[in-house]
Order: sequence, then C-alpha cells, then structure tokens
Amino acid sequence: MKINGTPYRSVWVNEKDGWSIHIFDQTRLPFSLDILRLTTQQEVAHAISTMQVRGAPLIGAVAAYGLALALRQDASNAAMEDNAAMLAATRPTAVNLRWAIDRMLNHLRPVAPQERVAAAYAEAGRICDEDAAQNEAIGRHGLALIRELAKNLPAGAQINLLTHCNAGWIATVDWGTALAPIYMAHDEGLNVHVWVDETRPRNQGAALTAWELGSHGVPHTVIADNAGGHLMQHGQVDLVIVGTDRVTRTGDVANKIGTYLKALAAQDNNVPFWVALPSTTIDWTVANGVTEIPIEERAASEITHVAGRGENGVQTRVQITPDGSPAANPAFDVTPARLVTGLITERGCCPATEAGLRTLFPEQ
Amino acid sequence: MKINGTPYRSVWVNEKDGWSIHIFDQTRLPFSLDILRLTTQQEVAHAISTMQVRGAPLIGAVAAYGLALALRQDASNAAMEDNAAMLAATRPTAVNLRWAIDRMLNHLRPVAPQERVAAAYAEAGRICDEDAAQNEAIGRHGLALIRELAKNLPAGAQINLLTHCNAGWIATVDWGTALAPIYMAHDEGLNVHVWVDETRPRNQGAALTAWELGSHGVPHTVIADNAGGHLMQHGQVDLVIVGTDRVTRTGDVANKIGTYLKALAAQDNNVPFWVALPSTTIDWTVANGVTEIPIEERAASEITHVAGRGENGVQTRVQITPDGSPAANPAFDVTPARLVTGLITERGCCPATEAGLRTLFPEQ
Repeated sequence: MKINGTPYRSVWVNEKDGWSIHIFDQTRLPFSLDILRLTTQQEVAHAISTMQVRGAPLIGAVAAYGLALALRQDASNAAMEDNAAMLAATRPTAVNLRWAIDRMLNHLRPVAPQERVAAAYAEAGRICDEDAAQNEAIGRHGLALIRELAKNLPAGAQINLLTHCNAGWIATVDWGTALAPIYMAHDEGLNVHVWVDETRPRNQGAALTAWELGSHGVPHTVIADNAGGHLMQHGQVDLVIVGTDRVTRTGDVANKIGTYLKALAAQDNNVPFWVALPSTTIDWTVANGVTEIPIEERAASEITHVAGRGENGVQTRVQITPDGSPAANPAFDVTPARLVTGLITERGCCPATEAGLRTLFPEQ
Repeated sequence: MKINGTPYRSVWVNEKDGWSIHIFDQTRLPFSLDILRLTTQQEVAHAISTMQVRGAPLIGAVAAYGLALALRQDASNAAMEDNAAMLAATRPTAVNLRWAIDRMLNHLRPVAPQERVAAAYAEAGRICDEDAAQNEAIGRHGLALIRELAKNLPAGAQINLLTHCNAGWIATVDWGTALAPIYMAHDEGLNVHVWVDETRPRNQGAALTAWELGSHGVPHTVIADNAGGHLMQHGQVDLVIVGTDRVTRTGDVANKIGTYLKALAAQDNNVPFWVALPSTTIDWTVANGVTEIPIEERAASEITHVAGRGENGVQTRVQITPDGSPAANPAFDVTPARLVTGLITERGCCPATEAGLRTLFPEQ
C-alpha cells in the first residue's frame, strides 16, 4: 500500500546489498516513519519481541528472513535448527511464526548447506508474495460482504465498520487482513467509515490503524475500547471486522485482548462479527481455543505506562498508575466460535465451524 | 476514609473561615495530593466540569456547596434560581447533581433571603452526612454478598472482585459505593483482591481506584479495560461490582463507558454483576435507559491524549493518535437491567427490576 503516494511493503530486502532486511519501526508510528535495516538473526528476534514488527502474518515473514540471515553466518544443520527454534520462541501466541519457520525448515533441510542462503531468501520471498496475494483475496471476499451491507442501506449512506487492534497492511506484508476489504470498498467508492478501537495497552488501533487509514484517506474515528458496545446499542455499527492471531479448527478466534468483549456486544445487538484471516492462521491441531491456546502475558509496564508523543514533540511515555500498584497484562483473548458470524479467508467466507473450515480447506 | 492514617472526607468546609470549600484536585491524583479551596460558584462549576471532583454523589454534594457560595454573593430569588440552573448544567448525565440542586432549592425557597446562606450550608452539610451514612449502609449490604461468596470458596481462598472506573470514597463524600463493601470485607479479614479496570479514556480506575485501594492496603491489580472478559473466561473473577451515575426505575444502569461490555462478559461466564448505588441515583422518571438517558459526549482530546506522570516526574500528557485522526468520546453507556444480577442500595439488595426497587422504596 501507499504512504504519501509511494508504494511499500512492510518487509523487503535491501535492493543494493541484496541481503539485509528492511522494516518499519512500528513502535515509532504514527509520529515518525523510521525504516530499520536488520542484518542479523538477533536483530530480527529483537524486532519481533519488542514489536517493532507485529501482526501475525508479518511476524512470520520477517522471521523467515531472520532464518536467512542466520544461515549467512552458519548454514550447518545444527545451527539452522537451533536458530529456527530461537526465532520461533520470540512470540508464543502467533501460529504464523511457527508456521513460517516450519515451512522454511522443510524447504531447507534437503538443501545442501552451501546452497541454503539463496534458497532461504527465495523461500522467504515466496512467503511474502503469497501473503500479499492471500490478503488481496481476503479483501475481495470481504468486499462482497460490505457491498451486501451497502445494498441494505439507503444509497450513499455511511457504512459504519468497527475494528480492533491493527490487522492492516503493516500487520502483514501488504493489504492487511481485516482492513483489506475496507481499503477495497473505499477505493471503489463505497461510503465506508471505520470506528477504530484504540486497543489498550499498546494502542495499535489509535497509533497504527488510524495512521494507515488516514494515510489512505479512509474516513475513521478513534474511540476508547470501552465505547464499542454503546455505539452498537445505538445502531452506529453495521459490521465488526477483526483479524486474528490464531483460529482453531472449530472456529474459536484468538486475537488482541478485548476482541471477545466486542464479539459479545455484537451478538447482543445483532451486529455481524467477521474475522479475516489467511489460512496459515488456522491451527488445525486445536479444538478448544479458550482452554488450549496459551495466552502471552506481557510486561506490566505496558499497563502502568502509556507511550505517545510528548508536549515537546518527542516520543515518551507517561505513568498512569500509582507507584506500587501491580498490573496484569494478558495480551490476547479467545472469542468462542458461537460469537463469530463468519470467517473471511483467501478462499472465501465460511461459518466459524469445523465443517465450514473443512469445506473451504478439504485437504486438511 | 484515611490517607496515610489521616481521616478525610472528599469535600469539607474550611474550619477556620467557616465558608470556603475544600476538595482534592482529583485530576492530580495519584501523583500529587492537592487540596483546593473553592470560594465562588464559578470555581465550583469549574471543578465539576473539569472533573477536579467527579463521581455522581460527590458532584451533588459539591454543587450544593456551590449554591451556598452563590448565595453569599446574591441571595435573591432570581439569582438563586439562575445560579442553581447554571450549576445543574455543569454535567448532563449525573442525576445526583440535579437531585442535590433541587433539594437545595426546595429547602431554600421558603427561607427569607437574609437567612439563606446559613440554611444552605446546613442543608449541604446534611447532604454530605447522609451520603456518608448511605454509603456505609451500602457497604454493609454489599459485605453480606462478599461473605456469601467466601463461604462457597475454600477457607482463606482469594476472593477476586472486578470493578470499573472509580466508585470509591473519593467519588462520594465518604466510603464510596462499589468500594464500600470491599473496604469492609478487607477490614474484617476477608482475602479480597480487586481487578481494577484502568477505565479509558480518563483512567479513573488506574489513577483513582488503584490509589484508594493501595492507600487502604487492599490487594489489587490494574488491568486494561480489554482484559476483564478473558479473566472471567478463566475463572479469575468471582464478582463484578460497579457504581452508577443513574439507574432507571426498571433497573437499567448508566455508568462509565465500558460497563456494559463487562456486564455482557459477566453474563456469558455466570459471574454475578452487582451495582452499588445510593437511592438518590435512581431516576424514577425513566423506564428505558438505552433510549432515554442522554449520554455526555466529552472532548476528543481525552481520546487522542493520555495524561500521566512524565519521565521527568511532572504531570503531562502524550498524544497517542496521528495528527488529523478524529476521535469520539461518549462518556457513559447503559447496561440493560437483564444483565444486572442485582442492585445494592442503602436499604438492602434487590433485583434490577421495577418491582425489586419498589419493594425497597415503596414510597416512590
């Protein structure tokens, strides 16, 4: 997608040296657009664990390049396996990370060590291209839902969507998942407006989704995470659309903490609640999301402090809790499938059920 | 209640001059305990509208003193009515504000102008004393609920409560509403622990509830507003208890934005959801809270910026949204009575129904 008219992906190989990796430092957005150059696996691991890159699909793609960087140092079997395990451990919840690393290993194990670096860059590049293509397909299928909504509204009436966290193009390689249909709807002239949950504690909605949408010219309004239920009660939300970090084969949805609350409110107000995902996000081994998906507990400082731009223009953070008050920070929650209207995948839409998913993915 | 061993109320008359009014500047908590002296109705109105004082019961009490201050300037009928209307307009949602002003007017209209100042201070003092007594009664009735919970848990097991916003002693004249039972339970040795919703956008939970509980020694943990549903799914919440700004005669509950989402999660996980209120909070004229209660829309800057203590120790704020992204800020929502397990009033507990309320308040 474009930033001020220039097309970007969220991760790319340096064109001049042909091997170092570029990302945006997403912890600096929306106030500063800093492009980082990563040259080692350790820098990649740091970028993932500190959320300079975040978003399940993007994490997988960047980790794949991280393995390529590691192979430049040591392409032996033992080092490759060790470094893959180290990269896979940088974030525990996102299934795409594990998936991308496994795909790389499956591709590289049969390759002779001296040929592994080139093979790794090629495979990581394919992961990126496939992610962008998948998301474009998700966008087309989700767009059909928005067109249907528009048909049931007066001609030209505003279509109010609500999203949580950031499942936009900078959470993926390109297009995004939950936001892809919104970009397409906007681009074809539908009158979409997006309620953007700020998404405490890290405020990815306020910082990233608002920035993405604003950069693309999509009308949007930032709200506190607390406000969505009230808006739905008053008919101000036509559709909720979110991304996900992991979907069970039964349709339970792990996503940013607070998603479950929005799904409850959507159900209580007969608002459709859709989840957009590439099929790599589906964990076919898990049947019960609430009991089986481990939830990452992040640092208490994300709760006790809020990062932003200070009054002097410099990025800083403020403490919002009293000294000595403990804080807890579960980063994800699980929305039971019963609350999900449907899933939007690259192959089309389906109910959030095992039968629905198997209809789209019969090879599983 | 006490701060570092010293007992305070949240509003009091200066002991030396006998007429100026003291409050805590709650916008400075939890980092600085600033006691303000208010000498005019305009200062009182400013304190209410900028939320230096907040919490429905406290707003009413402070507004009552505001009218007393106004009468010191002009005790004529016309000025009294004008000034009462001006004070009543400082916050649109809290029914206690209107109630306190009406009570003052009913008391003062028959009084000769030259006797009105003394009568106003006396009546405002009675409003304060009655509020404190009411809240103590609420505390006793709520304590019985917590004792019942404790009976169903292993001896000494932690009792996990969750609260939203601040319905503690600094939201009232003393004791608080939702927190009164918790203080009593803690004081009698029950092993209570409180999950404190930070309560965006103004973070009254993170700043005020955490400060109150910490000052009193009650174990607590601050969480993002997004986290409560996840905790309930995993059995980590035994009881939700919140305050309210207005309850309809049918038991619908207007409270800080986001309360409705917690009520939905409580219902979905069979967690009792109780609302503590003095009966002055009941609006007997309203039957449908969602459609009839006007919801205050506050400044977008509360969403786009977060206030706290900067890294240099000075209170400041940071911007969290991109320049140019709009924000919306509804300050309250309405939890339908069907989601409320029961109401805790100064006369006892009752179902959140018109029949339940009329049983406790047959005179209405």
